[in-house]
Amino acid sequence: MSGTLYGVGLGPGDPELLTLRAHRLISTARVVAYPTLEGGSSFARSIAERFLPPGVQEIVIDIPMTVDRAPAQRAYDCAAETIAQMLSDGHNVVVLCEGDPFFYGSFMYLFARLSERFSVEVVPGVTSLTACAARAAMPLAARNERVTILPGPLPEEELRRRIAGAESLAIMKVGRHLGKIRAVFEDLGLTDQAVYVERATLPEERVLPLAEAPESAPYFSMVLVTKGADPWL
Amino acid sequence: MSGTLYGVGLGPGDPELLTLRAHRLISTARVVAYPTLEGGSSFARSIAERFLPPGVQEIVIDIPMTVDRAPAQRAYDCAAETIAQMLSDGHNVVVLCEGDPFFYGSFMYLFARLSERFSVEVVPGVTSLTACAARAAMPLAARNERVTILPGPLPEEELRRRIAGAESLAIMKVGRHLGKIRAVFEDLGLTDQAVYVERATLPEERVLPLAEAPESAPYFSMVLVTKGADPWL
Repeated sequence: MSGTLYGVGLGPGDPELLTLRAHRLISTARVVAYPTLEGGSSFARSIAERFLPPGVQEIVIDIPMTVDRAPAQRAYDCAAETIAQMLSDGHNVVVLCEGDPFFYGSFMYLFARLSERFSVEVVPGVTSLTACAARAAMPLAARNERVTILPGPLPEEELRRRIAGAESLAIMKVGRHLGKIRAVFEDLGLTDQAVYVERATLPEERVLPLAEAPESAPYFSMVLVTKGADPWL
Repeated sequence: MSGTLYGVGLGPGDPELLTLRAHRLISTARVVAYPTLEGGSSFARSIAERFLPPGVQEIVIDIPMTVDRAPAQRAYDCAAETIAQMLSDGHNVVVLCEGDPFFYGSFMYLFARLSERFSVEVVPGVTSLTACAARAAMPLAARNERVTILPGPLPEEELRRRIAGAESLAIMKVGRHLGKIRAVFEDLGLTDQAVYVERATLPEERVLPLAEAPESAPYFSMVLVTKGADPWL
């Protein structure tokens, strides 16, 4: 009898934003797996750390950062084989995923490689999208409002076109694209409505008007604009 | 010293998808508040029920369902005054919110009325968006993919235009708009890629290809299309 692969969302960073289900799966896990970038520390592991049981076996999926995707692909191939062996031996494997596993998460790469051969359960988590809105005190959407989510790395022209047509709007993965994003907001006259949120729910969180955002932003940052429909109605 | 107003996201329905923070706030609450529609039962309360402490005081916000928004507005006005009295008397008040308080939630109406006078904390929750994706086994977005979220009640022409321009796509609040949504997907040749999810994470959950969706859908249902970018890369 094979084990089950769990893709477990950990939420945006505050360990108290784990779900009860994530907490139960992690605190009783025998085997966990998580990605790191080029041997760095794992943000996912740091969120879950206090809940990991003593003696838990850890599979580190070290992902090289290269423009060519082939080396990363091979890293996921290898990790999937290691995990497949564990599952075949009857062990459950809990994959630690920042935010939600299926919302800009790397879990999908393991899911694609293993879901046809093994039982998989995805445990959804709190996304940075609603965590940033909560911390910025900006209701994202109500009634018939649309929400558009754009990754910051999109080309400037596409960002401009999509932002202009949006109602409530979140730009994810701002990082080194902040300058470009700021220029687009400036052109569209939207800077005064936009809020910058960095590392939401962590002790080092920052929430600022976009105009006061720092020169360089970390990967885990977001720009939010909400419609500001009359919330009294 | 006034109390704090907590807007607490409860996730999509499975009580195990509460966050640890939501669980702590609810299980130690002295006063909770939640909306009902026209005297019906409260979905939010049903998610949190098992965690409510004995003797907790419950403020029921009964919302009339009318086309004119004024009666609902007055109901929120009254509820806000009741809650304001509690807060002024030094009690914390925990508002139970399905999903996430700021993602198509009614908490924003209380937030608008009380956030300037009182300390408010919004506790984000798992949204139906990622819960449906998890249950449908459909990764929502990766890398530079865009996500578009559209409410089902939008006019047919707007839906058609927005759906045609979308990449990953979620239609919320399908309910009685399912026929219209189905026709738009059919016209755009997208029916085969679309999945219908009803009451995700609850015992009565249904996940079906859109073509096999029932004639009538509940309010808590969603249609998902994801880009299907090559997840191996």
